[in-house]
This record gives sequence, structure tokens and C-alpha cells, in this order.
Amino acid sequence: MRARTIKLDEYLKERKSLVDAALEQYLPPAGEAPARVHEAMRYSTLDGGKRIRPILTLAACETVGGSVEIAMPTACAIELIHSFSLVHDDLPCMDNDDFRRGRPTAHRAFGEAMALLAGDALFALAFRLISLTPVEAPANVVLDVIRLIASAAGTRGMVGGQVMDLLAQGRAVELSEVEQIHRLKTGALLEASAVAGGMLGGGTEAQVGALSAYGRNVGLAFQIADDILDLRGDAAKLGKPVGSDLKLAKATYPSVIGIERSVELAARAVSDAIDAISGFDERAEPLRLVARFSVERET
Amino acid sequence: MRARTIKLDEYLKERKSLVDAALEQYLPPAGEAPARVHEAMRYSTLDGGKRIRPILTLAACETVGGSVEIAMPTACAIELIHSFSLVHDDLPCMDNDDFRRGRPTAHRAFGEAMALLAGDALFALAFRLISLTPVEAPANVVLDVIRLIASAAGTRGMVGGQVMDLLAQGRAVELSEVEQIHRLKTGALLEASAVAGGMLGGGTEAQVGALSAYGRNVGLAFQIADDILDLRGDAAKLGKPVGSDLKLAKATYPSVIGIERSVELAARAVSDAIDAISGFDERAEPLRLVARFSVERET
Repeated sequence: MRARTIKLDEYLKERKSLVDAALEQYLPPAGEAPARVHEAMRYSTLDGGKRIRPILTLAACETVGGSVEIAMPTACAIELIHSFSLVHDDLPCMDNDDFRRGRPTAHRAFGEAMALLAGDALFALAFRLISLTPVEAPANVVLDVIRLIASAAGTRGMVGGQVMDLLAQGRAVELSEVEQIHRLKTGALLEASAVAGGMLGGGTEAQVGALSAYGRNVGLAFQIADDILDLRGDAAKLGKPVGSDLKLAKATYPSVIGIERSVELAARAVSDAIDAISGFDERAEPLRLVARFSVERET
Repeated sequence: MRARTIKLDEYLKERKSLVDAALEQYLPPAGEAPARVHEAMRYSTLDGGKRIRPILTLAACETVGGSVEIAMPTACAIELIHSFSLVHDDLPCMDNDDFRRGRPTAHRAFGEAMALLAGDALFALAFRLISLTPVEAPANVVLDVIRLIASAAGTRGMVGGQVMDLLAQGRAVELSEVEQIHRLKTGALLEASAVAGGMLGGGTEAQVGALSAYGRNVGLAFQIADDILDLRGDAAKLGKPVGSDLKLAKATYPSVIGIERSVELAARAVSDAIDAISGFDERAEPLRLVARFSVERET
């Protein structure tokens, strides 16, 4: 148990630094005009995030025999889309959050208009990045990945979940609605992270299908764990106040089914994720580690 | 003169209805959940816009021998990106506009959060659409188009221009700065409209280069004409109050070099645009018509 934890920590740390280095290189330099928006893009992205989505994309690609180089632009694109959604989610007309990961949110640091535009620019850069995938990946596969990610980010995915979340605030919701909100808001992009890696790595249809089921379950586990951390996590480690979902009367797992059942549900999602990829060899070990990490983390 | 005007009117009307029908079909149905954001997306897009950008894409594609079918998804994608930029530009933290094309702006009709998310979703849908280009266009060309459009929409294009515009408000600017703001804010996407059509139609490098110079000059002519219309257009025809740029102390051509020189500059851009495509045959006639329309219109 202890040995596995150390191995996981090392793996995540090494992968995070690979992804951070690539993001640093892909983002426009802060000194390039118009500098203010580039600063805001870098501030919102190079912020100590866990990089779970890009790590999943790289790991899924390697699991089916692909290389880190082929998956990196898409891995970083997905992280940029995640950053963009957080920047817009934090805006005053949305959640109106002042802090994220221990620092002022983008609109607190750069003003609302600049945060809005930095978010838009991160989204644009994401699609530019995917289009820069090395030519070893067939162009039609890259187009499929673009279609997948655009769908996962749109109203049938992330934005759809943000809309449902917004409309659910302050009223009583059922478990099925919480599930749908989370499946769209965070699940769709997490699932796409694993699927895109499988596609770019040249995975078979069956392999990509298994990665899809894996990603769906890991996404669910992550979200439930996030909800629980928001209730009883350590504010200093999280870098934001505990209980912010409660303040906004957000639809969360603990608020609808209680903490105990939420913990059970998350554990089942982890084991379903691991089952989904049981047919893969030892190259899938990182995916198994990440699945367990989704509920064992403190931030 | 009169005969040409009628021909232009008919051409634009026919093309606009083609594009409107395609947009109607590409946008998610208003009845599909989450309905509210789909309504906001449709409201912001199906609003009687002139559809200049998609018309340019289709015309450029046909000029080099391509079909309407190949260019239509990209043509509509560019229009969605234009709509998205207007929705975000109108938000209270940006220009805080209440009316556009004679109707309440999206955030006045749907609330700020929904307008923000509808804009994001239009952007996501745009890239999904391009990825759905018929297979007659080689996948690597479609990837090049995605890269072109993502760049034209980002900080080296549209968003960069919005940022510069924002930072220039309320202070004195030089002509060179006005030119740069407009080249990025509206010019980049207009130029990309023509270039994308040429690429999808299978144009040679020289042809695409000519379309690029054409698009750059038409974009300039359109923007100067917009600035002039904002000052002395007919508010009823424009669907918004005249003088709104003045109110925001925006950097415009008339405010920096006066109306007379602005009119001259626009006329020169039109003739430069037409010169750029002088090597094309009669299939380029629509492009020549649109270039003249850019300064002859009333809205």
C-alpha cells in the first residue's frame, strides 16, 4: 500500500512536469503583444493544477502502443479547455469565486473583461494545438479527435453541464439530475481525455471503447471525491474555502445522498474503471494508478 | 450601375438564405435539453445577420473550382465564431450593449451567465462543424483550415483585437494603432473566410495567396464602412443607436483621420481587393461584387 502510494506520487509528479513544460512552450510568451491577455492565459493555466486530464490522455495513448509526442498537443489542448472553463465559471455572473488554488481568480487579478477574453483565447488555442499533432497520426484520426473534443466541450458536454448546474442552483434536485450534471460538466471532458489518447495511439475500436468506459467511471469518481473534499477537505491544501458548493446551494453528491453513500459510489466507480481496462496489459498500470488516485487524494 | 446593384442584391439574398438554412440545421434544436442555452445560441445566430463571412468562404471556394457543399460547414463555423464574439463583446464587462440588430442583446434576453455559456458553446460547435467537412476535402487540408481559423480567432487575431480595443478605450490613439486593432479584431477572421474557402476548394498556393490579399482588403473596407455607419448611418436600419463607438470613446477611423479620409481609405481598400484577384476568371465575379458591397451598404 505504502509502496504503491510512493510509486503513484512519483509517476504523477514526473508526468505533471512533462505536461507543465509542454504547456509553458505552447502558451504565447507573456512578453508578446497583446501582453496582458497572454499573462492572463498563463496565470490561469500555469497554476499548479494536477494535470489529470492530460496525464490520462498520455497514459491512454501509451496503453495502446502510441507515443507521448503524438498525444501531447491534444493532452495540453484538453487542459487548456479545462482552464478556460474554470476561468469562465469563476466570473461574477457565474460562481463569483475570488480564489482558486490559493490565488486570486483570473478576473480578480486581471479584471472581468480580460478574464473573459483570456478564456476565449485558451479555447481557440486548444483547437490550434490539436491541429498541430505530429504527422505520424493520420489526419482523419486527428479530425475525429477534434470532433470528439468539440462535442465534449459543447452543450452535449461541459457547457451543457454548466448550464444545468446553473439552472439547478438553489432548488432541490434528485440523484439522477446530479449524475447528469456531473456526467456532462466534468465527466464528458475526462472521458474524452482517455478516448482521445486511445485514438491517437492507434487503438482498436474495442480498446477505445474500453478507454471510454474507464474514463467515464474515473470522471465520476473524481467528481464525487471533489464534492466530498469541498465539504470536509483541508482549506489550506485545497487553496480555497471549504463549503463553497454549500454556499451556492449547488447540486452535489453529499448534499443529495449523504457522505457515506457518496464514498461508496466513488469506490464503485473506481473498481468499474479498473474492470473496464482489465483486458489491457501492464502498460495500463498508470491508468489503474490514476483511477485509485481519483478518490485517495487530498486536493 | 443600377443593374449591378440589383444583381448584387439578388446574389446576396440567395446566398444568405442558403447559409441561414444550413445554420438552422447545424444549430442544436431549441427543444433539446439543455433548452435554454440552445435557445440563446439560436437567438444570437439566427438574427438576420448579413452572413458576409460565410458568403466569402463559399464564393472563394467556387472561385477556385470547389463546391458549396465542401465549404458550407466551415462557412457556417466562421459565422458561429463571429456570433460568439458579438455575444461576448456585448456583455456588461465588455461594451455593455443593450441592443444589436434591433433586438435586445443575448445577455439582456437570457441573462449574463447564459449569454456567456451560449457564446462558449457556439465556439465549440464551430470546430465540431469544420471537422464534419465532407470527405471529398482531404483531411490534412481540413486540419490546415482548423489551424487557420483557430489562429484567426485567438490572440493573434480576433481576441487579440478585442483586447487591444479594450485597452485603447478612452485614450488618444494613432492611425497605426486603429489599423492594427481592426486588422486583428475583424480583419483576421474575414481574411480567413476567403482563405479557408480557397483551401477547401483545392486552390493553388498562388490562388490562396491572392484570396488572402483580397480578404485582408475587404476586411479593411468593411471595418472602415462600419465605423462610418456608426457615425452617420440610419439607426432604424442599423438596429442600434448611432454613435455608440463615440460613447465608448472607441478607436475608429473617422475619429482619428476624419470622415473624408476614411471614405478614401475604404475606396482604396476595395480597389486593392479587386486588383488582388484580377488573375481569376468570371467565377470570381461574386467576390468582386462583395468587395464593392462592403462600402456601398446601409447596414
